[in-house]
Amino acid sequence: MQWEPYLHKAQYYETDGMGIIHHSNYIRWFEEARVDFLAQIGMPFEQVEARGIVSPVIRVVCEYKTMARFGETVRIRVRVTGYTGAKLFLAYRVEDAATGALRCTGESSHCFLCGERPVSLRRAAPDYDAILRSLTLESGEEG
Amino acid sequence: MQWEPYLHKAQYYETDGMGIIHHSNYIRWFEEARVDFLAQIGMPFEQVEARGIVSPVIRVVCEYKTMARFGETVRIRVRVTGYTGAKLFLAYRVEDAATGALRCTGESSHCFLCGERPVSLRRAAPDYDAILRSLTLESGEEG
Amino acid sequence: MQWEPYLHKAQYYETDGMGIIHHSNYIRWFEEARVDFLAQIGMPFEQVEARGIVSPVIRVVCEYKTMARFGETVRIRVRVTGYTGAKLFLAYRVEDAATGALRCTGESSHCFLCGERPVSLRRAAPDYDAILRSLTLESGEEG
Amino acid sequence: MQWEPYLHKAQYYETDGMGIIHHSNYIRWFEEARVDFLAQIGMPFEQVEARGIVSPVIRVVCEYKTMARFGETVRIRVRVTGYTGAKLFLAYRVEDAATGALRCTGESSHCFLCGERPVSLRRAAPDYDAILRSLTLESGEEG
Repeated sequence: MQWEPYLHKAQYYETDGMGIIHHSNYIRWFEEARVDFLAQIGMPFEQVEARGIVSPVIRVVCEYKTMARFGETVRIRVRVTGYTGAKLFLAYRVEDAATGALRCTGESSHCFLCGERPVSLRRAAPDYDAILRSLTLESGEEG
Repeated sequence: MQWEPYLHKAQYYETDGMGIIHHSNYIRWFEEARVDFLAQIGMPFEQVEARGIVSPVIRVVCEYKTMARFGETVRIRVRVTGYTGAKLFLAYRVEDAATGALRCTGESSHCFLCGERPVSLRRAAPDYDAILRSLTLESGEEG
Repeated sequence: MQWEPYLHKAQYYETDGMGIIHHSNYIRWFEEARVDFLAQIGMPFEQVEARGIVSPVIRVVCEYKTMARFGETVRIRVRVTGYTGAKLFLAYRVEDAATGALRCTGESSHCFLCGERPVSLRRAAPDYDAILRSLTLESGEEG
Repeated sequence: MQWEPYLHKAQYYETDGMGIIHHSNYIRWFEEARVDFLAQIGMPFEQVEARGIVSPVIRVVCEYKTMARFGETVRIRVRVTGYTGAKLFLAYRVEDAATGALRCTGESSHCFLCGERPVSLRRAAPDYDAILRSLTLESGEEG
């Protein structure tokens, strides 16, 4: 199954003194794309939150390839690279939407908390568990 | 009485494509300086918050004079320009700490909420009311 | 003539500890909407910049009415409220796109620089001058 | 040799809707600490830049351990973990300055550009090369 990539237009306030997008903003773009992706797969943020579940970032990586500039629209693809019930692993690919030029790739890892307590979605939310499990299989097949 | 000015070192991630500090950051610097000022006058954020009071910004103004640059330390002075029990008015002056060159001036207006409900500090926090009242008199005399 | 309002989806990284959008972000949203508006009226940023002209913000005001929250899409309308050749005055209106609830109103003032030198668009860019002049008349008629 | 750790006070505008510091800000704090560290070792940003050299981030990693909150001061230690002439590898450790509680660890990788062209500091700046070489040895001995 193919999810819609997320589009972000690089803003002037995201530029830095080198005239390019400051590297910290890509971490924020990953979040934008992740929120969109989770909504697409049936786990919209408000709904997850309403069930008392949050999934903080426990690790993030970004590898910068070429520099995005103000005014450019980037296309961000998110996919599930791993899921254990207790942890979720996502990967990101950021490209210039016009040319396809690769801007950066990234990863984020997440745990799940209910209140302050770590939980497994297997018990806390079997429906979400099923969704993420199916996506992991899928991406395994792709690879 | 004279309060300690607040110092902020302009960061690289605060620059923009023009090679200067992006204008939106001064609004954030006002907040940094305000938090520091309120702590100095006896209204530290954590203490105010612990009593269930928040004071959201209801208006902000910034007049830009000259451009701060990366690496520069700015000195920010805050003073109370008005206080009515229900509303607080502050003014800001941002200078290059090294040369005294004026970077910008600004203002912020605040109301007070207890829960979601607007309150007057006269009733909700007579001690804070007394502090802000005394500072208003003082700044009136200065003017 | 009616310009397309600008849409911005409020991001999670734009929220603050009160669970609402941090007030400094509206200043950035004004910039997003301004860049879009200037492109619509025939003054796209890249083109203006390519002619060696920049128009820094010299004053910004924001009056906060109600609080935008994560996930909400806001609709931002920009209009020209004044223009003198040397200075441009814009006004902003930010509404919840779903309900029309007013989030905030704002203003920004701009000068024009060529290199580091203040210029009038009358001489520096008569075509832009004509555009802004016509919009000022228009908005006068509306009011 | 022991370098001064960098101190950063977590700001209100850095919090997010979970009431904690938004994870993207640590990437910015790494930059603050890096700028300070490079100045301490004899490579101040302005001086490096004046020689036409920039060192963009080509990779960044952050592992989040516990959550920093508004008002807390964090202490950030930076050290050189690798250096090849063409690339520099740094590691970061962010702790609550009051309790020593580990907030996160991180890494950044940098190349060196002169104009837009990748360079080795061995040729482009032998003095900087010597500094970074000596720090790599040192940290090797520590490990």
